[in-house]
Amino acid sequence: MGMAAGSESTINAWAMTAPGAPFERRTAPRRPPAAGEAVIEVAGCGVCHTDVSFLHHVVKTRAELPLVLGHEISGRVVEAGDGVETGWLGAPVVVPAVLPCGECELCRAGARTICRSQVMPGNDRDGGFASHVVVPARFLCRVSEKVLEGHELWELAIVSDAVTTPFQAIRRAGLAAGDLAVFVGAGGIGIHGVQIAAAAGAKVIALDVNPAKLEVALASGASAAVNVSGLAIKDLLKQVRSEAEKIGAPKHRWKIFETSGTRPGQETAFGLMGFGAVIAIVGFTMDRLEVRLSNLMAFDATAFGNWGCDPVLYPEVLEWIGAGKICISPFVEKHLLADFHRVFEAAQRGQLLQRAVLVP
Amino acid sequence: MGMAAGSESTINAWAMTAPGAPFERRTAPRRPPAAGEAVIEVAGCGVCHTDVSFLHHVVKTRAELPLVLGHEISGRVVEAGDGVETGWLGAPVVVPAVLPCGECELCRAGARTICRSQVMPGNDRDGGFASHVVVPARFLCRVSEKVLEGHELWELAIVSDAVTTPFQAIRRAGLAAGDLAVFVGAGGIGIHGVQIAAAAGAKVIALDVNPAKLEVALASGASAAVNVSGLAIKDLLKQVRSEAEKIGAPKHRWKIFETSGTRPGQETAFGLMGFGAVIAIVGFTMDRLEVRLSNLMAFDATAFGNWGCDPVLYPEVLEWIGAGKICISPFVEKHLLADFHRVFEAAQRGQLLQRAVLVP
Repeated sequence: MGMAAGSESTINAWAMTAPGAPFERRTAPRRPPAAGEAVIEVAGCGVCHTDVSFLHHVVKTRAELPLVLGHEISGRVVEAGDGVETGWLGAPVVVPAVLPCGECELCRAGARTICRSQVMPGNDRDGGFASHVVVPARFLCRVSEKVLEGHELWELAIVSDAVTTPFQAIRRAGLAAGDLAVFVGAGGIGIHGVQIAAAAGAKVIALDVNPAKLEVALASGASAAVNVSGLAIKDLLKQVRSEAEKIGAPKHRWKIFETSGTRPGQETAFGLMGFGAVIAIVGFTMDRLEVRLSNLMAFDATAFGNWGCDPVLYPEVLEWIGAGKICISPFVEKHLLADFHRVFEAAQRGQLLQRAVLVP
Repeated sequence: MGMAAGSESTINAWAMTAPGAPFERRTAPRRPPAAGEAVIEVAGCGVCHTDVSFLHHVVKTRAELPLVLGHEISGRVVEAGDGVETGWLGAPVVVPAVLPCGECELCRAGARTICRSQVMPGNDRDGGFASHVVVPARFLCRVSEKVLEGHELWELAIVSDAVTTPFQAIRRAGLAAGDLAVFVGAGGIGIHGVQIAAAAGAKVIALDVNPAKLEVALASGASAAVNVSGLAIKDLLKQVRSEAEKIGAPKHRWKIFETSGTRPGQETAFGLMGFGAVIAIVGFTMDRLEVRLSNLMAFDATAFGNWGCDPVLYPEVLEWIGAGKICISPFVEKHLLADFHRVFEAAQRGQLLQRAVLVP
């Protein structure tokens, strides 16, 4: 038996019906949450590059179509299924983009991001481009009063992927104070990586093709910025080395974060590899590229990718946001869910200046 | 002032003089060791795939030509430079293939394999295809009486690269008891990887194109073997999955070791990537290959390479050899240094059945 705190009995949503086809508005009865689930009244849902990939079937959704996309969700718990503590009712939450089961062998081994029973809203089931979303409650992340004092709940939606994914990548790369962190791409993901790395005490160099984004990176903690437009990798490497020297960063063991999700970005990240480098693939592209994999050996280097972020790290990310170490307000723009077509169109064309968050 | 225990005053060696040119026999006066150096009377020096690459300038040596190649060296200390304890005189030793300085920032941070002042005999300076070799003494690895009871000193030469490099890769991959270790290539490096992984309690699957090598792998600790000849990667993956299930190995988080040093091997290793996989590039090739680097992200996976092996791990490797966890005797064949041309020719043609060790 679920317990309801909200009053709506329907879910209004935008559903993807076929690859490339216009999303369709849909109103469906709200199903009661199953055991362990919660119904979230959506405050905001971020539009991610991945949603665009889903629409064009560059990447296929794991659930069958029609499907409501959207995996960067914040909101309030309005209904709780059996086994979910009633204390959650009314709680402001961020919904992790990847919700592990918490029970399987992989989860118990701490490999929660690869849990094979994981639920990603907007991929495994209906997501957040909707008035409500039904998700497993176990790993919901409660937003503290302190964070809410300085933020609106809708804008915290982007914590779910744009902020936590680089956070996990930085953790896994072992970035320490004094290290050099290079971000290839200072966009929606990279700009948060820049802030997190700087807050962790690293020296940060931002690379991008867009001078405006580089300016923002410099204002957000980067110590240097390099416009990669038209630069051959050898010249770029020379320039990054020179910038690294100027800002007193180490010559080796660079931590390089590919946050552009493009082939040129990956080529750049791989090409910057030096001794003891760690390359984190944080942005996604289906494009293939040609590499000399043995460079990993010659340079004693590591490349890794991470799928989302372990929910156990979310509270720390919110703490950093509360403490002002990570700013999100300048990097989000609010749109009405009713304007879905217009906003998604602009996202597809790369015309949005900030991360768009859709608010029902 | 050096202290001499030997009597020779010359070094007989085979020097590479130009890319692709026949090695030349050379007799040179033996220079006294500098401070911190030791002169090793060579007991044996292994012929490595890397030496063949050096000869054909597929990979360039760091030191100018002419240069004596050879980096898998065992022998006895016959002379010690200033600052080297006299206790080393007469000691049977294995010379690590990569000798870090031990003093620089990288060494102090534990990143000894990327020490920028490192010395690799046969690359940075004259190596072991010689009667004697002069090397920094600091990280020489003393061979215990126990190990010498069961082994001849010459055969321990291959510890320096063929055994320690996979050992370090296995350590760095975090291989634990019960894990699945897949070796792509069961040759000179892979066969030791198979033994080490099995001794560490992992389930081991060996892949190769050579049925004879697969037989040896099965006799050396592998629980399953798959001949990859003519198999498309999808079919291979299916077969490896099925073998993994048969031997009770986990479905995810495979540790995949590329020990063939070939493009097809690297394509196989990358193609076997699954959730939480760790891919270690242990063999070297200059060949490039096309990969979807984002698979690292989709699978939450890691690829890394390691350059040689940290000398601090050598004593443990010798201990494992002493304890019979790693057999080396069946995998080496002794040749006279005087037969250099014939042996190197056979190595180039891939005609040697075992790792060739040249004995002065």
